[in-house]
Amino acid sequence: MKIGVIGGGQLGRMLALAGTPLGMNFAFLDPAPDACAAALGEHLRADYDDKDHLRRLADEVDLVTFEFESVPAETVAYLAHFVPVYPSAESLRIARDRWFEKSMFKDLGIPTPEFADIHSQADLDAAVAAIGLPAVLKTRTLGYDGKGQKVLRAAADVAGAFAELGSVPCILEGFVPFTGEVSLVAVRGRDGETRFYPLVHNTHVDGILRLSVASQAHPLQALAEDYVGRVLEKLDYVGVLAFEFFEVDGGLKANEIAPRVHNSGHWTIEGSECSQFENHLRAVAGLPLGSTAKVGESAMLNFIGAVPAVEQVIAIDDCHLHHYGKAFKVGRKVGHATLRSQDLATLKAQIAKVEALIEG
Amino acid sequence: MKIGVIGGGQLGRMLALAGTPLGMNFAFLDPAPDACAAALGEHLRADYDDKDHLRRLADEVDLVTFEFESVPAETVAYLAHFVPVYPSAESLRIARDRWFEKSMFKDLGIPTPEFADIHSQADLDAAVAAIGLPAVLKTRTLGYDGKGQKVLRAAADVAGAFAELGSVPCILEGFVPFTGEVSLVAVRGRDGETRFYPLVHNTHVDGILRLSVASQAHPLQALAEDYVGRVLEKLDYVGVLAFEFFEVDGGLKANEIAPRVHNSGHWTIEGSECSQFENHLRAVAGLPLGSTAKVGESAMLNFIGAVPAVEQVIAIDDCHLHHYGKAFKVGRKVGHATLRSQDLATLKAQIAKVEALIEG
Repeated sequence: MKIGVIGGGQLGRMLALAGTPLGMNFAFLDPAPDACAAALGEHLRADYDDKDHLRRLADEVDLVTFEFESVPAETVAYLAHFVPVYPSAESLRIARDRWFEKSMFKDLGIPTPEFADIHSQADLDAAVAAIGLPAVLKTRTLGYDGKGQKVLRAAADVAGAFAELGSVPCILEGFVPFTGEVSLVAVRGRDGETRFYPLVHNTHVDGILRLSVASQAHPLQALAEDYVGRVLEKLDYVGVLAFEFFEVDGGLKANEIAPRVHNSGHWTIEGSECSQFENHLRAVAGLPLGSTAKVGESAMLNFIGAVPAVEQVIAIDDCHLHHYGKAFKVGRKVGHATLRSQDLATLKAQIAKVEALIEG
Repeated sequence: MKIGVIGGGQLGRMLALAGTPLGMNFAFLDPAPDACAAALGEHLRADYDDKDHLRRLADEVDLVTFEFESVPAETVAYLAHFVPVYPSAESLRIARDRWFEKSMFKDLGIPTPEFADIHSQADLDAAVAAIGLPAVLKTRTLGYDGKGQKVLRAAADVAGAFAELGSVPCILEGFVPFTGEVSLVAVRGRDGETRFYPLVHNTHVDGILRLSVASQAHPLQALAEDYVGRVLEKLDYVGVLAFEFFEVDGGLKANEIAPRVHNSGHWTIEGSECSQFENHLRAVAGLPLGSTAKVGESAMLNFIGAVPAVEQVIAIDDCHLHHYGKAFKVGRKVGHATLRSQDLATLKAQIAKVEALIEG
């Protein structure tokens, strides 16, 4: 079976590493000459709206999937004429737009921060008056890793903020005094079978994920599964979906979903029976899903900007390096390490060792 | 770091799957147009004695290693002029010739079956008279998976046997009434650091490995490590080496070594902290070695001739598929499954399920 992937970054690369042992081949559509997934499959180097290349991709693969959600709607619609596309165009339409996304949460009875649709500075001023400060102004589409957003703490931050984000459609979100950030990675098959990984505690620095720790019998696991299950069913979703929540007052408020394999699920490569990458491929290919059970206690640390010296990373016990083969650049995710330990105490000690390397 | 691999079969493929997350790139020299490792790296399609391509390979990689031992000595010698080659030419010289190999065992005080060097039918007749029957006549070089050998049970089998194996240099080995076959996979770094995986019980059918089960505190582990350690030190070996033994009277008799990653070590991908593939790459690249500790209880079943229906294989709990992407052909290794279970009783039950698929 040949899988077409829109995007050829590290997520595509890790999909190929997981799918090759299943006998799958891969083709990646990515305009970047140095797309790091290209080492593991065919690289169609073209823009995401290049219909000639989209058609060529559709002709030579059995199905198409995505490694990022900001794919033009026309791309998805065009591809879907010729080849099965998972997750669906509708899933992507919702997930890539914060307004649609939050509105869906509300419709499904999933608690979220207060939010308002913003098309002008006047909209913003009115929404700030209604929701209050602090609040966060975010572009409806194309934001990631803290990009395309601005925290509004005082009136001075509000003035001109809409123009500052490019005068594009935005959403204002009320500030949530959260005690933690967690995510749930789920997978749903073509037949509707659904499995959930354990909740993950996430730590962000400057808007970029730094550390994910897989939880053990988290008290909010069942609640999170309930919420995520509603979204999966509503979208008739196929593939892996990640759902980020704020922990607030012992409950959960929905932050956002990602209709794809997700950074907070990278620990599953070593830390679970069947990784998010393999499970995504199983789901989109119509194969039986794999176990999401944990193997030991796991954490994931991102390498941002640079990967520390390989010989130092892999000398740490329990540590598994995932180097993305990308050029190092400030703020860029260029690799991660999974730690898989026998118990939480050991895990914490090993996390400190990797952190020391990152800071060193 | 770019690694050159002589041979582009499933061992090369699994080396690349293990090395890519370490940030390594791969080039494979293999004359086969459909070399299955080619999906994961550059494919230099040329014969193993093609000096132009050997030179090209040497120029573009940081080091060269092998996925099989029957590489022409001239190839290794030529490459070694231009680029580091691991394991060494001397290691390959010994390992690819049963006479050199068995003679080394004898020199190192490692028990082996009786053996004799055979260059003619007269040599064979004399050796049979000395060693007795049953015995096994094997070509000194190029044998694998039961090819290039003949079991001699009675005088009628002896007559003409030398010609039957092609009148090439052979070795006669006395029959050993073994109670089991075990192998030890070891890895030795450039600095001499050595690690051993747990002993593996192997079951062969028609000379081809069918089932490997990783042992738990095997009573012969220390003895096997002693024997393998002698060979590693003697050869100043760098990389993974597999050593196959017969279990005889509660002790071990050496059968053969393979100077490379080995089929009986495939279970380590899921079943150990650091797989034989990653550890081989760490060793040849001069990186610190990884832990050889087991993760759960593991077994490996080979898929020979065909891979059963993927959806059936991966529907089995604890089962991890490794499809080599090769054309199916009678007697050819085209994939394997690793089972990793929490305990031996579960493991046995799951082995039976995979066996039922293979036989079905």
